[in-house]
Amino acid sequence: MNASIDFDRRLARFDVRGSQAHARMLGRIGVLTADEVARIVDGLARVLGEIERGELQLEARLEDIHMNVEARLTALIGEVGGKLHTARSRNDQVALDLKLYARDAAGLLIARVDALMAALLEQARAHVDVVAPGYTHLQRAQPVRLAHHLLAYVEMFERDRGRLSDAARRAGESPLGAGALAASSFPLDRAGVAAELGFHGVTRNSLDTVGDRDFAIELVSACALAASHLSRMGEELVLWASQEFGFVALPEGYCSGSSLMPQKVNPDIPELVRAKVGRVVGDLVTLLMVVKGLPLAYNKDLQETQEPLYDAVETTVQSLGVMVGLVRGLTFHAGALARAVDAGHLTATELADHLVGRGVPFRRAHDQAGAAVRRAIELGVELRALPAAELAAIAPEVGPDVADWLDPARAADRRDVVGGPARGRVLDEIARVGALLESRSMKEE
Amino acid sequence: MNASIDFDRRLARFDVRGSQAHARMLGRIGVLTADEVARIVDGLARVLGEIERGELQLEARLEDIHMNVEARLTALIGEVGGKLHTARSRNDQVALDLKLYARDAAGLLIARVDALMAALLEQARAHVDVVAPGYTHLQRAQPVRLAHHLLAYVEMFERDRGRLSDAARRAGESPLGAGALAASSFPLDRAGVAAELGFHGVTRNSLDTVGDRDFAIELVSACALAASHLSRMGEELVLWASQEFGFVALPEGYCSGSSLMPQKVNPDIPELVRAKVGRVVGDLVTLLMVVKGLPLAYNKDLQETQEPLYDAVETTVQSLGVMVGLVRGLTFHAGALARAVDAGHLTATELADHLVGRGVPFRRAHDQAGAAVRRAIELGVELRALPAAELAAIAPEVGPDVADWLDPARAADRRDVVGGPARGRVLDEIARVGALLESRSMKEE
Amino acid sequence: MNASIDFDRRLARFDVRGSQAHARMLGRIGVLTADEVARIVDGLARVLGEIERGELQLEARLEDIHMNVEARLTALIGEVGGKLHTARSRNDQVALDLKLYARDAAGLLIARVDALMAALLEQARAHVDVVAPGYTHLQRAQPVRLAHHLLAYVEMFERDRGRLSDAARRAGESPLGAGALAASSFPLDRAGVAAELGFHGVTRNSLDTVGDRDFAIELVSACALAASHLSRMGEELVLWASQEFGFVALPEGYCSGSSLMPQKVNPDIPELVRAKVGRVVGDLVTLLMVVKGLPLAYNKDLQETQEPLYDAVETTVQSLGVMVGLVRGLTFHAGALARAVDAGHLTATELADHLVGRGVPFRRAHDQAGAAVRRAIELGVELRALPAAELAAIAPEVGPDVADWLDPARAADRRDVVGGPARGRVLDEIARVGALLESRSMKEE
Amino acid sequence: MNASIDFDRRLARFDVRGSQAHARMLGRIGVLTADEVARIVDGLARVLGEIERGELQLEARLEDIHMNVEARLTALIGEVGGKLHTARSRNDQVALDLKLYARDAAGLLIARVDALMAALLEQARAHVDVVAPGYTHLQRAQPVRLAHHLLAYVEMFERDRGRLSDAARRAGESPLGAGALAASSFPLDRAGVAAELGFHGVTRNSLDTVGDRDFAIELVSACALAASHLSRMGEELVLWASQEFGFVALPEGYCSGSSLMPQKVNPDIPELVRAKVGRVVGDLVTLLMVVKGLPLAYNKDLQETQEPLYDAVETTVQSLGVMVGLVRGLTFHAGALARAVDAGHLTATELADHLVGRGVPFRRAHDQAGAAVRRAIELGVELRALPAAELAAIAPEVGPDVADWLDPARAADRRDVVGGPARGRVLDEIARVGALLESRSMKEE
Repeated sequence: MNASIDFDRRLARFDVRGSQAHARMLGRIGVLTADEVARIVDGLARVLGEIERGELQLEARLEDIHMNVEARLTALIGEVGGKLHTARSRNDQVALDLKLYARDAAGLLIARVDALMAALLEQARAHVDVVAPGYTHLQRAQPVRLAHHLLAYVEMFERDRGRLSDAARRAGESPLGAGALAASSFPLDRAGVAAELGFHGVTRNSLDTVGDRDFAIELVSACALAASHLSRMGEELVLWASQEFGFVALPEGYCSGSSLMPQKVNPDIPELVRAKVGRVVGDLVTLLMVVKGLPLAYNKDLQETQEPLYDAVETTVQSLGVMVGLVRGLTFHAGALARAVDAGHLTATELADHLVGRGVPFRRAHDQAGAAVRRAIELGVELRALPAAELAAIAPEVGPDVADWLDPARAADRRDVVGGPARGRVLDEIARVGALLESRSMKEE
Repeated sequence: MNASIDFDRRLARFDVRGSQAHARMLGRIGVLTADEVARIVDGLARVLGEIERGELQLEARLEDIHMNVEARLTALIGEVGGKLHTARSRNDQVALDLKLYARDAAGLLIARVDALMAALLEQARAHVDVVAPGYTHLQRAQPVRLAHHLLAYVEMFERDRGRLSDAARRAGESPLGAGALAASSFPLDRAGVAAELGFHGVTRNSLDTVGDRDFAIELVSACALAASHLSRMGEELVLWASQEFGFVALPEGYCSGSSLMPQKVNPDIPELVRAKVGRVVGDLVTLLMVVKGLPLAYNKDLQETQEPLYDAVETTVQSLGVMVGLVRGLTFHAGALARAVDAGHLTATELADHLVGRGVPFRRAHDQAGAAVRRAIELGVELRALPAAELAAIAPEVGPDVADWLDPARAADRRDVVGGPARGRVLDEIARVGALLESRSMKEE
Repeated sequence: MNASIDFDRRLARFDVRGSQAHARMLGRIGVLTADEVARIVDGLARVLGEIERGELQLEARLEDIHMNVEARLTALIGEVGGKLHTARSRNDQVALDLKLYARDAAGLLIARVDALMAALLEQARAHVDVVAPGYTHLQRAQPVRLAHHLLAYVEMFERDRGRLSDAARRAGESPLGAGALAASSFPLDRAGVAAELGFHGVTRNSLDTVGDRDFAIELVSACALAASHLSRMGEELVLWASQEFGFVALPEGYCSGSSLMPQKVNPDIPELVRAKVGRVVGDLVTLLMVVKGLPLAYNKDLQETQEPLYDAVETTVQSLGVMVGLVRGLTFHAGALARAVDAGHLTATELADHLVGRGVPFRRAHDQAGAAVRRAIELGVELRALPAAELAAIAPEVGPDVADWLDPARAADRRDVVGGPARGRVLDEIARVGALLESRSMKEE
Repeated sequence: MNASIDFDRRLARFDVRGSQAHARMLGRIGVLTADEVARIVDGLARVLGEIERGELQLEARLEDIHMNVEARLTALIGEVGGKLHTARSRNDQVALDLKLYARDAAGLLIARVDALMAALLEQARAHVDVVAPGYTHLQRAQPVRLAHHLLAYVEMFERDRGRLSDAARRAGESPLGAGALAASSFPLDRAGVAAELGFHGVTRNSLDTVGDRDFAIELVSACALAASHLSRMGEELVLWASQEFGFVALPEGYCSGSSLMPQKVNPDIPELVRAKVGRVVGDLVTLLMVVKGLPLAYNKDLQETQEPLYDAVETTVQSLGVMVGLVRGLTFHAGALARAVDAGHLTATELADHLVGRGVPFRRAHDQAGAAVRRAIELGVELRALPAAELAAIAPEVGPDVADWLDPARAADRRDVVGGPARGRVLDEIARVGALLESRSMKEE
């Protein structure tokens, strides 16, 4: 039960990088000679190479990745390998490795989020002129643009990105030097190690440092919200791909057919992505429960924080990644969307607004619009097909341009405020998000 | 089941403030006359006054706070009250109220966190010279200072503060203007409303806006971590107040006695605070589960996000608040702490470090220190009381100043790195945190 | 923070009933005189009457319901009231009250489950002859009967009933007599108290008894599963009530309209019921987290188990109850269901089975059926409308009665196994469940 | 993302057993010839043998265990292998495999629970005469027996056993025959298959059957409670093994030392077991969240129910198993326990009871006992060492045998009710539990 090598093998490259920085620092403060540093740093690189090429058999007998690396190092370079652990403890070492992992994971997650935002943006660009029904309570409510619908997800993922980025920033203090719990009596250059490893500073309390897993929990919290956005997307794709909606066709490879029932296109990937949020939230609960009520400094319970962290990160990375390809490959059925917009009196609000614009008090305009819809339902026609005389009888204040107001495509354009579905506003958003993504991708290069 | 007035009454002042800003904006864009605006704004102030003084009976028949306020407004100022809801929907209105609540709650939580940090700092200042046992695995490990122990919690709460602050910042975009789901055909001044209400901008997609509860979930995530830190504190206080540890006495009013067993001091408050994390995590799970798989825009499910938000915020505010008083009133038993430091060979690491300093290779020094401890246990004495001859037999390299190394109080001081328990480092931290808290409290004034 | 009277007032009648049984027992063992018992039992009845009529102001100063009841009892009957607590502790008293509450709640939940099963059964009886599309992956798959669909929920709730009943049975040991933690030095008649209160026995270990909340957690687990079934029902009702599906109309009072958009029927109650599972699961997480890692016997943390228990029970009772009325009031649109069955080649499996019956090997039959569907799609017709020549070209083994196999209504009837949608099987199930419910309702009377 | 072979390989033996029963049934109803049945049954046995001996490389390309088995079967026995899947679907097949797994897992869990109860009972038998402090709020309260303390855990695990057994019983209906969602047009002998596989009956609704994972959730709920009991045990062992308590020594192999600090015995296993409840509760949350809001019949989301089920079962089996060895190896320090009983006035309640027995009214007796304890604290002695004159001054009614009442060992014996710590009662419980476990182990043989 004690061995963690089955899962902490993910830490190999962080462990080696951290140990190299530690060795160099021991050299700077005179604990190791330059030659010893060189042999250790070089030996560690060889160990990592062996692990990455699958040449080194990691052993459960040695319990964890740290001991596996150190044992192999000593086998390679001799007794000097044993000096590496001077002024360090397993407790600050594992804290370091996990923080490096978490920061690296945040970067990977952000890259996937950016890719998904780009895929959504691309589809939005291609569908600015497709009008789609906007729903509340899964009831058709008002006409919007398909691009507007897709951009809603862009907003969600932009917030996820912010949270991931904040989590990475807050994990920016190097734990190395906290020792087992009470730092070290060696004159460590903690700041130097931190800088070499890309941290912006060092932690400020050794007892807190070895017992802190906030960075893991915060990262998994951010994953949980991203996964919840993905679950909403999954749900909508399942709905839209049903025969009843018929708004979208999923690309091959993201759904499964049936040799027997070839008409059936099972939306496997959207369903799985919808489900994955349960997994990430389960991981989050595990983490919060593991740390509940732990006394200060290191307790072995903390070993149980690793697997949920890895699982949440890997699940979210995978879900985001698979959605990139899926979104890119979606084929929207503009005709079905248009038919849906046309049925359901979706411009009732427009009629009321039109009347308000002509001086009718708000509440009365609402009542008139309601009455007009009821009359259209009685006659079995859509609101915009209600005979002019009928309409005038209900709302005498109606203007000559009322037909224009009742046209769904035009209705979306009237909603011309920041964040609204008017063509111009949607184009503005596309431009804004496009510039944002471009500036980010340039920064990376 | 539909009515929410039992819990959304908390939103009254945000609802009124939001409605006043909305009315003023409707005035600016010519939908309302200046007189109408004045009557509405004034009427809303009267409604709020009535609510706050408990004069207005909020009615379940009117379902929610919004309708209760509007109905009362119309009763007070007549039909013009009905114009307030022009260009607005219940959907963007409730999103606004909740965001205002969340931002306000974040502020309150931050204030409580600051107060708790201040209380801890005060106790740390008073106990710089009390040496305490540092534990790992609840086993005595190495000597630290009591102030160092207390400052570990300061670090945790400082991270919580950062998360709360990030959550508030990310909730800084005003939702008003998103309408029911597709914005509005009125030429709204969304930015103006946002500025008046203290937002730094407006949301960018109406469909996302009315269906977004990320801000609530992120805030509750931050509360969950804070509550988990409080649970650790609760656990330690329960342990330290036991007869077995005997390190601390809780102030009256935070524990319960028994008329029958007056020797018993039940640490009720630490136990309750320890338990409360379960409640906040439960709230978090509820929130994440409610939004799972919801299609875009507003769904009634979102009504179920309110109670867990309120409960998590109020629970965390209460727990933080009660801990402020509790921490201030703690009486530490320096004698018991000292006795604990003195028993358990807590300076074994020091002996090894001493030997390394005298040229003994690291692993050998470790073995010698281990052997010395084993010998001390055989002789039934503490390591520092091991006869010199015995020590020299085990580790001939031992120096004349070894007694100094084995002194627990001195041992803590040798751990003289950033974040370590050395007296100077602890004083540095006290100064740094003190300055930080002071600069914040000045900013508030 | 210590006071629990805001929520434990729910325990009043259990507290009084338990105290009456305790007093009678003290009389039997000679600790109280017959007269004292009579005065206490009578006084307790008066206190409960006052509480139930809202005449007694419960005071936070007295912290909990137990002290409120005892204080009022003493006020009413004088000092003899103080004798009631002899040989009892708050710890076994609250364990008793909570167990009585949990057993009572289980009974109420079971009654609601039975009512919901009866409502589903009634609708199933009325819709035996309505053919409906059966879905997998939300894709139309094979024809079933609407009654068969409704009976699927009956099965779920029958399992819930079993879990609730097991939870109640396992909570059947009386805790009274466990004292504060170590029982009592009085010669208590624990079994007598247990029998009077409807328990089937007594707990067997005093330390376990005062620290045990398994019965609450098990009951809430059962609620969580029931709530998850309700969430599935809620989801299906939302889908079926959408314009896209159009399979069902919800009864008035369970959905909300819009004065502006009268065509819109928002399925508020199904949405809320769908969300409520989040709440109950949150309660379950709270409970499990609160008891994590508690040392034996009573800890104050256990106070935090009450609210999640009440909330989960009340939420589930409410959700079940509201669904009873909703299900009874559903109007199914048989025409829309039939149209859905008719589109989507739902009898492709039937064709394959038909061919297997005529000696075609299984895999080849499958391939032929698949080819036939593809050909139908090419021709733009449903499978059953594929010209005979076309079908024969693909599957020469096809028999003269193939049209009968391809008829959706007949297809359901061919699936004539236990648990299948054949008319006879569905009628069998209706009869079986009907008899079951009847036998239960007779037992209750 | 679609492939499940990495985790569903656990189902191999259930898949094969289920397929063999299905093939035999197809033989009975004439779909397969006797020879075909024999070849399939035999071939399946060979496939399982290959899998169990690690000879068959399971391929992700074939996605799941079912296709891997079928593909290998066909490779071994030729095209007849393809007939196995007649009248069956992946949907009822996986439901069958998972139910067989769950029932098997419940059996394994019950065996482990029995072993742990036996280990606790053995230690209880060995420590009937060791008096131990009973705690509430982690404050010493009243004397009990160590055996009584250990038996409290026996009670918890006995309830777990009941839940596991109920879960297995409720999973006792065979799903095979439900087909993809609508059963089958073949005249299946579902009952025959069920009987062969050890089920007590068949499921009653095909739509429910393929979408039901209640049995997994209920089993994991039972695991969560068992894990929570284990976490309490873990916490107590960590506490009792600390220097401060010093009540117990853990056996080697269940804790880790430090080469540097040989005095340190880190209770790794109790800490890990304490943490594991977080993992199981996380699994439970995942399961409940995955099934939230799923429409009827099979959805791909259900694939995500497998891993949490396996993880919860395996974690709980492992935790229970490791605790068996740990409990057997515990060495209790009777001396330390006795010293703890002797300090803290643990017989204050006895004094009050003694006075009540001599006619002092209950509340007054309590006050006197309280006053006596306060006086003892003033004098710096334990209550039982309070000079007789002092005691008589406070409570003149005190009897000549008061010293006997104040003796801790005797105090436990006075608490002579069912479930109490009196020696006779503890021996009764040991006998009762011993007989229970013996009758079970005999039933198994």
